[in-house]
Amino acid sequence: MANANVSWVLGADGSDFGIDNLPLGIFSTQGKAPRTGVAVGDFVVDLTTLHDAGLIDQPALAGAQTLNAFLACGREHWSALREQLRRLFGVTVAPHDRAFIEALLVARSGVTMHLPIDVRDYVDFYSSIEHATNVGKIFRPDNPLLPNYRHIPIGYHGRSSSVVIDGTPIVRPFGQAKGAGGSPSFGPTQMLDYELELGFIAGPPNAFGSPIPIAQVRDHVYGYVLLNDWSARDMQSWETQPLGPFLSKSFATSISPWVVSLDALEPFRVENRTLDPEPLPYLRTSEP
Amino acid sequence: MANANVSWVLGADGSDFGIDNLPLGIFSTQGKAPRTGVAVGDFVVDLTTLHDAGLIDQPALAGAQTLNAFLACGREHWSALREQLRRLFGVTVAPHDRAFIEALLVARSGVTMHLPIDVRDYVDFYSSIEHATNVGKIFRPDNPLLPNYRHIPIGYHGRSSSVVIDGTPIVRPFGQAKGAGGSPSFGPTQMLDYELELGFIAGPPNAFGSPIPIAQVRDHVYGYVLLNDWSARDMQSWETQPLGPFLSKSFATSISPWVVSLDALEPFRVENRTLDPEPLPYLRTSEP
Repeated sequence: MANANVSWVLGADGSDFGIDNLPLGIFSTQGKAPRTGVAVGDFVVDLTTLHDAGLIDQPALAGAQTLNAFLACGREHWSALREQLRRLFGVTVAPHDRAFIEALLVARSGVTMHLPIDVRDYVDFYSSIEHATNVGKIFRPDNPLLPNYRHIPIGYHGRSSSVVIDGTPIVRPFGQAKGAGGSPSFGPTQMLDYELELGFIAGPPNAFGSPIPIAQVRDHVYGYVLLNDWSARDMQSWETQPLGPFLSKSFATSISPWVVSLDALEPFRVENRTLDPEPLPYLRTSEP
Repeated sequence: MANANVSWVLGADGSDFGIDNLPLGIFSTQGKAPRTGVAVGDFVVDLTTLHDAGLIDQPALAGAQTLNAFLACGREHWSALREQLRRLFGVTVAPHDRAFIEALLVARSGVTMHLPIDVRDYVDFYSSIEHATNVGKIFRPDNPLLPNYRHIPIGYHGRSSSVVIDGTPIVRPFGQAKGAGGSPSFGPTQMLDYELELGFIAGPPNAFGSPIPIAQVRDHVYGYVLLNDWSARDMQSWETQPLGPFLSKSFATSISPWVVSLDALEPFRVENRTLDPEPLPYLRTSEP
């Protein structure tokens, strides 16, 4: 029996774009509107065409210019698409299907990539104790890690409308920073920085007022992008108290074009570090 | 000549819903989909029907279930609609137009109101020095007003997806708060609160990386709603450092259903208080 991980697509096997990955994105070629695609090997394959030809069964991807509608369909659809695509790009594909898809292959090097999702809310978390400590040192050298960090996820909402695709030119922001004498001055930031982060892309929402149990996270997180959290540190230290970062962060957030699914990353899962202290149990008992 | 501010609509003259107001919203009646409407007197008038009848010329309102597309059209359209509606509801309207509209009037008391806009980003500002001082006292009794307040607008991004229409039941949130001994406990908030705020509804966006000069604010702000900023104060004081409010605020934000235009409020404009110190000049000179 042929190996289920071997692909007939040039450049797939042994690359970051083998049939165990199959990230989704939005691409365009000259003169055409952006559309949904999957990356495999050195190529992009148009998912609308695959759907219209009956090779995949995902109406939410057909004719779409973002992944939002498909992501809202949930895990059953996500897993079905992944299995359909692995079959189509694998060596056991039917010859006439392979011939049809070969005619569709577009070189990844020649396409324009677009923002894969229409961002509706964006939350930035302190993802590791090392990062929280490092950033804390910029603003509080003597007290980098605050007491709540070990007990509760620390995060804040960012600006959805300034999330842009990787490669978008970023304008150095103007704003206030604290001058030498303690009074503020206005001008271009002198401390432009960015943090390298992992962006979680969520799918189906919870009901208003109803939390999502940790055990159900796989039903709500489709996958991941790399993310650059652009920051103006001099503006940040002046504006950030008491309500947190604002203009110093909201001028730009760049994300990578291909959304890698949680399923693709599952084999690389590792044990979490030991939490100290243990998180409090999540018990919703009675109203006060 | 008839007084331009007098309306033939029952309940309009002398009320908060006279023809100098004419707020827009999204309403539905039993068994029908939500649609755009204007409030006048004791009634709502369906704007899709007015458009389809040729009485107003605003395609972005016809068939829409939010005001977003109309708000994106900009001030020229906003002013044109206002003038068209004032004429239609005024006493100089043509008799056949009046007869047509009379048949459309739906009692406001009998309709269901919906979120008027699809919220894309939501920013919460400290709007007055009195509020900033009052709230500051909750968390920093000895130091309520921080040094940056007098120099720069202090604000943070909130959660867009939990902005709901007035009357939506709000679930008391569960979360962490600092217990008596200094270590956190988990449970329903014991300090549920809300702030009464004014919500600014923006229309056409700026280009990415390009600020909006203060003098152009009327081209970007369509109007206003009342807003309740629900807050869990015990959760807030524990989570808020160093990145600002998060779960203690993001569980709910209620807004009023009718969006009152800046044009309607223009006659009530007052002089700003004297700013101390004067804001820094906004000069974008050279890149560093």
